[in-house]
Amino acid sequence: MNNKMIAKFIGKILLVEAAFMLPAYGISICRHEDAAARAFFITILLTLLVGGMFVIFTRGAKKGFHAREGLVCVGMSWIVLGLFGALPFFLSGAIPHYVDALFEIVSGFTTTGASILPEVEALPMSLLYWRSFSHWLGGMGVLVFLLAVSSGDERSKGFTMHILRAESPGPKVGKLVPRMKQTAEILYILYMILTVLNIIFLLLGGMPLFDSICIAFGTAGTGGFGIKNDSIAGYSPYLQNVCTVFMLLFGVNFSCYYMLMLRQIRSVFKDEELRLYLGVVFGSTALIVWNLRGFYGTIGETIRHAAFQVASIVTTTGFATTDFDLWPTFSKSILLCLMLIGACAGSTGGGFKCGRALLVLKGLRRSVRQIVHPGRVEVVRVNGRAVEEKVLENTNAYLAAYMLIIAASFFLISVDGCSVTTNLSAVLACFNNIGPGLEAVGPTCNFSGFSVFSKLVLIMDMLAGRLEIFPILILFSRTTWGKR
Amino acid sequence: MNNKMIAKFIGKILLVEAAFMLPAYGISICRHEDAAARAFFITILLTLLVGGMFVIFTRGAKKGFHAREGLVCVGMSWIVLGLFGALPFFLSGAIPHYVDALFEIVSGFTTTGASILPEVEALPMSLLYWRSFSHWLGGMGVLVFLLAVSSGDERSKGFTMHILRAESPGPKVGKLVPRMKQTAEILYILYMILTVLNIIFLLLGGMPLFDSICIAFGTAGTGGFGIKNDSIAGYSPYLQNVCTVFMLLFGVNFSCYYMLMLRQIRSVFKDEELRLYLGVVFGSTALIVWNLRGFYGTIGETIRHAAFQVASIVTTTGFATTDFDLWPTFSKSILLCLMLIGACAGSTGGGFKCGRALLVLKGLRRSVRQIVHPGRVEVVRVNGRAVEEKVLENTNAYLAAYMLIIAASFFLISVDGCSVTTNLSAVLACFNNIGPGLEAVGPTCNFSGFSVFSKLVLIMDMLAGRLEIFPILILFSRTTWGKR
Repeated sequence: MNNKMIAKFIGKILLVEAAFMLPAYGISICRHEDAAARAFFITILLTLLVGGMFVIFTRGAKKGFHAREGLVCVGMSWIVLGLFGALPFFLSGAIPHYVDALFEIVSGFTTTGASILPEVEALPMSLLYWRSFSHWLGGMGVLVFLLAVSSGDERSKGFTMHILRAESPGPKVGKLVPRMKQTAEILYILYMILTVLNIIFLLLGGMPLFDSICIAFGTAGTGGFGIKNDSIAGYSPYLQNVCTVFMLLFGVNFSCYYMLMLRQIRSVFKDEELRLYLGVVFGSTALIVWNLRGFYGTIGETIRHAAFQVASIVTTTGFATTDFDLWPTFSKSILLCLMLIGACAGSTGGGFKCGRALLVLKGLRRSVRQIVHPGRVEVVRVNGRAVEEKVLENTNAYLAAYMLIIAASFFLISVDGCSVTTNLSAVLACFNNIGPGLEAVGPTCNFSGFSVFSKLVLIMDMLAGRLEIFPILILFSRTTWGKR
Repeated sequence: MNNKMIAKFIGKILLVEAAFMLPAYGISICRHEDAAARAFFITILLTLLVGGMFVIFTRGAKKGFHAREGLVCVGMSWIVLGLFGALPFFLSGAIPHYVDALFEIVSGFTTTGASILPEVEALPMSLLYWRSFSHWLGGMGVLVFLLAVSSGDERSKGFTMHILRAESPGPKVGKLVPRMKQTAEILYILYMILTVLNIIFLLLGGMPLFDSICIAFGTAGTGGFGIKNDSIAGYSPYLQNVCTVFMLLFGVNFSCYYMLMLRQIRSVFKDEELRLYLGVVFGSTALIVWNLRGFYGTIGETIRHAAFQVASIVTTTGFATTDFDLWPTFSKSILLCLMLIGACAGSTGGGFKCGRALLVLKGLRRSVRQIVHPGRVEVVRVNGRAVEEKVLENTNAYLAAYMLIIAASFFLISVDGCSVTTNLSAVLACFNNIGPGLEAVGPTCNFSGFSVFSKLVLIMDMLAGRLEIFPILILFSRTTWGKR
């Protein structure tokens, strides 16, 4: 294990984090939020100090870097990001308990959007900004950002590849262009363009600038932190529909946008994952509209709420325009099933991912066919291309890990004694980086009722969900830390 | 597809079923249960007629028989068994709706034990007997029985192998001896010995003969139909403990008993699946006893109830001595997790099976290790022997199918509008062949509240669960019925 290289990398990440705190610090000074300003000042200083020490004392680290270092690096970086990112909430006294502050910021970085705050509006603006900005940063990945702006040293090629592979969501690495650094750049440029578009459309609907930026951050990262107690419910129907559209856009594989830029329009619309994703969105919306007939005043309102909630859950954003915990069971069950599917691979959305679901379904269909015709050799194809057997195996292994973590977390947090539905939906909402669940963790409630132990379990779930399990799982494996 | 051979086989199965109805018919005559006697008489006649026609008109069927025919045979046989087995309940008027009667008997044959009857005690004795006997028959498998008593024609060797493989539970065929017919015989002999022992121990505790036989049938098949409204709660602590022990015994892989007969005692106690099973049983019981402290009068009572319920759920029997729906969430969550594990492979118990869980866990551990050391080749071992890669792949594919069916069924039955916990536990309880779930389908309630559609979904779940998914899934595949 190349410990020095990992420490150096974590040091750099901390320096980046300190830099990213500056805008929030600026806001706290402009708005005369003294407690927050002091908290940000101390945090930035501390982060710079520790980060700087890590970088300085690891000079001359060997370049050797393997897949396991990449995974450990990613897992550790995200934990450290959370540990320091939580400090402004804690030091300013806005969140009195450190574990709560950690929960809040990990929920931010992992783009979960689950909150322990009963009153969001009570927070100072600088902390609201930091909270929402953490979504934006976590959405595309902090480490991917570092790669995009780094010098692109050719000798550390293996390094960048392993980082990008470990942090980017989806069953396969989303390599757009041969060079990793360039891929990271393109991803961030697309991400920024979409975010700015989102802000403009919100401003056109009359939303204040600060709100627009924060909501766009929450949408872009498919996070879900709002800045109002009632999430998005208080905004106009136009603004809600803008959110619906942009949530869905950020749930699409970013390589589709890249292909659009290259005018490969046909291959975008033939993309099987995109088709599954859109099919799921429209199908679920239609079923919920049917189930909710008579629940709201007009059919238009019903469609708006149904589409918003479907988009919010399937992209794992977690905004809400209505208390869907009051919906009939069928609609709630659809939302629970959507939690299990998630957005497209290579998007900022979380969950199991449509691409994986497609592979599991196709693999299963082949299994049935092979029982019927044992001799026949059949290859699973996606978008006309054969899928490697190794990818299919990994997808099934991922499913196993996925189910195991859900069962284990459900078991662990049930010690608190909340209802079965609360616990199950809390685990699904955190692990899939969605945010709100049902009952005691429903869209109008929050996660403050859980014990410290359960919060720590859910924090690990959020991290495992965002990083696609293995970077976190590997930290707990004896093999990782062994000599050989 | 060798349709003639399949029809012939189903015909034979019907003849066997008619024969097995005779004892119940006898009881109905002795007890002067006129309606039931008439119903049994008509059913037996009809079953003989249809079965006889199937056998006669398919003379000279070709012997060619492949895996797909085996699976289709098993799937169809079980459906036909249910369709005819339901008639006595329906024709006697004891269960006025045919779908309800079908639910009840499929629940019996699949050893689920889920009931739509609010008042079990209102049933005539002959029907109670038939209901419990269906558990015993379904536990070891009706087709396995047919193999055990058949002439063992060497030319149909492939035939017997495919049937046994399709009907026997577990990730691998439990071949005890080279010849399939002999394996089936040994299994049935062991099954009978254990059942008789169970009856004797119940009689020693003062249970009436009829009750002992019915309860032993329910225990042996890990079914769970009782003959009292309060399941096993009304019997003495001694009798409850006898049930606990025998439920656990019937949840053990039968090959362990065969090895015990061969005095290979050491290899039995080194069996990793058995160790996992016992570990789960003792661990869960201990945790529930800890969680229930103060819930019952004495610690002895707590242990008795905890052990009974754990044994009942993990072996997928479904008897109850107490309303565990009133237990605290932690205990209920443990029971829900146990529902997902199930008993040992090669036992009469259902569920995912400990053996499969072991393979999934070991496969996952290897995945993590291979990420850390990509070059190293590692073989998964169970009981010291290497597991074939194909078996690991199949296990993961099974997990995928398993999760998919749970999600799909949960989605379908949620149209009825019961609570999320009710629906989820109903699907888990039926698909894993357990019986009672939580809330509206808890141990003191029943499944009569569901719509006809939901009942049909749950019937398919019970069949898919008992037959390990693929014999049922294959019936819905176009490839199965295609020409090629």
